[in-house]
Amino acid sequence: MKQQAIGIFDSGVGGLTVCRELMRQLPKEQLLYLGDTARVPYGTKSPVTVTQYALEAAEFLCQQGIKLLVVACNTASAVALPQLREAFKVPVIGVLEPGAHAAVSSGGNRIGVVGTEGTISSGSYGQALLKLAPDAAVFSAACPLFVPLAEEGWSDHSVAHQVAGEYLAPLLAEKIDTLVLGCTHYPLLLKAIRAVVGPGVILVDSAAATALEVVALLECAGLAAVDGSGGQRFFVTDVPTRFRRIGMDFLGSELQSVEQVHIG
Amino acid sequence: MKQQAIGIFDSGVGGLTVCRELMRQLPKEQLLYLGDTARVPYGTKSPVTVTQYALEAAEFLCQQGIKLLVVACNTASAVALPQLREAFKVPVIGVLEPGAHAAVSSGGNRIGVVGTEGTISSGSYGQALLKLAPDAAVFSAACPLFVPLAEEGWSDHSVAHQVAGEYLAPLLAEKIDTLVLGCTHYPLLLKAIRAVVGPGVILVDSAAATALEVVALLECAGLAAVDGSGGQRFFVTDVPTRFRRIGMDFLGSELQSVEQVHIG
Repeated sequence: MKQQAIGIFDSGVGGLTVCRELMRQLPKEQLLYLGDTARVPYGTKSPVTVTQYALEAAEFLCQQGIKLLVVACNTASAVALPQLREAFKVPVIGVLEPGAHAAVSSGGNRIGVVGTEGTISSGSYGQALLKLAPDAAVFSAACPLFVPLAEEGWSDHSVAHQVAGEYLAPLLAEKIDTLVLGCTHYPLLLKAIRAVVGPGVILVDSAAATALEVVALLECAGLAAVDGSGGQRFFVTDVPTRFRRIGMDFLGSELQSVEQVHIG
Repeated sequence: MKQQAIGIFDSGVGGLTVCRELMRQLPKEQLLYLGDTARVPYGTKSPVTVTQYALEAAEFLCQQGIKLLVVACNTASAVALPQLREAFKVPVIGVLEPGAHAAVSSGGNRIGVVGTEGTISSGSYGQALLKLAPDAAVFSAACPLFVPLAEEGWSDHSVAHQVAGEYLAPLLAEKIDTLVLGCTHYPLLLKAIRAVVGPGVILVDSAAATALEVVALLECAGLAAVDGSGGQRFFVTDVPTRFRRIGMDFLGSELQSVEQVHIG
């Protein structure tokens, strides 16, 4: 069991930021990553459709033999976690609870959350935050243009700064002290977001927080690889060309093995 | 046969601009529209995947009984038309050839084309234009942020103007006299695009050109409805909420009947 891989899935390239953190923190673990690029994005789709896609992605990874499933997609984490935990025996970690945990741990009391339409309209971040910090005030904003800006490679472009200014203005008006980047694409826009919110607001990247939670869970459950040599395999549902090209920005290095598979 | 409906499909809401033109020019015709909202967008996906989705969408519409199929999606028109024509008996009209035809008819000789990554990298517009006007010079640019800007309702926002300025600069440097809006979302950005290109460049909207071609084909083939009362039915593959909300901007009026269906 210890020698089995960790499975990670996302709608596309965004979850590679989580993969990157896991590679850094857990170099002995083998990682299997699935990007559902034939049906990306999930953020504009309904909870029912996202849940169906998430179950199919998880099914594929479980068939490969994994000891732990990481849902590296905020939208799927926001709407499909209970169904995933019911359907599969392996432990399932989403990015949402670790993100909420990190926000509260940092001492945040007026917490802003940004994410896709699906994540924000689910209200799941608000629920997770208020469970941990019932007295906190939570404000949220959907930022639909952030994902296409990051995928276009315009993360530090003046357009990204202007869009960030517009989306974040209502949160700044509420005098937030913490901002949860509730989508795995958003850390790429860090410079633009930081420029808008100023130095005083704590930015929470759920990718890093999730990797820490994975480390803790592997330890607790006695599932950590003892003498593994690491390694990653990437699977996608559309042809790999675009995933390989754009993915580099997210993973921070070249993607070696990328295979196309059919799911669903 | 004359009393059968016209089938129209697109990856999502964009094709509603074609539907709108057909409603205006052919008020007696019944229209069946399918938006593949569970798998939208097509513009960033591979030709193989887009062709598979297009065949499934066409199959659904043909099962409803249609006399003509309109592929109201530039990406699908650019990569899947031959396969669609081979697979189905009904006449199939894409948006690409009518757009190219209109550009050449307008006297364009230095023709710019803008579209999704899939449409532009297929090179199909260039081929269609050069078949009609072998001496024309064709320049193209993918504009991946135009679709999310239109769907966000930021069509006339200063961000849209800035993005248009950036994408169109290389085409303006080539002194284009005509610009084909090679994506059904782009007519929504007309103001921003016009402001950038100035009054001297002819803008070609393939939606209007396609509707004219449908009118002509129905006449030629003796397929026009004689005393129909029109009417539209809309089908989507995800839940209808977002489609109904965003679709209004594209159709120019409220969408009455929207039903969710499963295809593929």
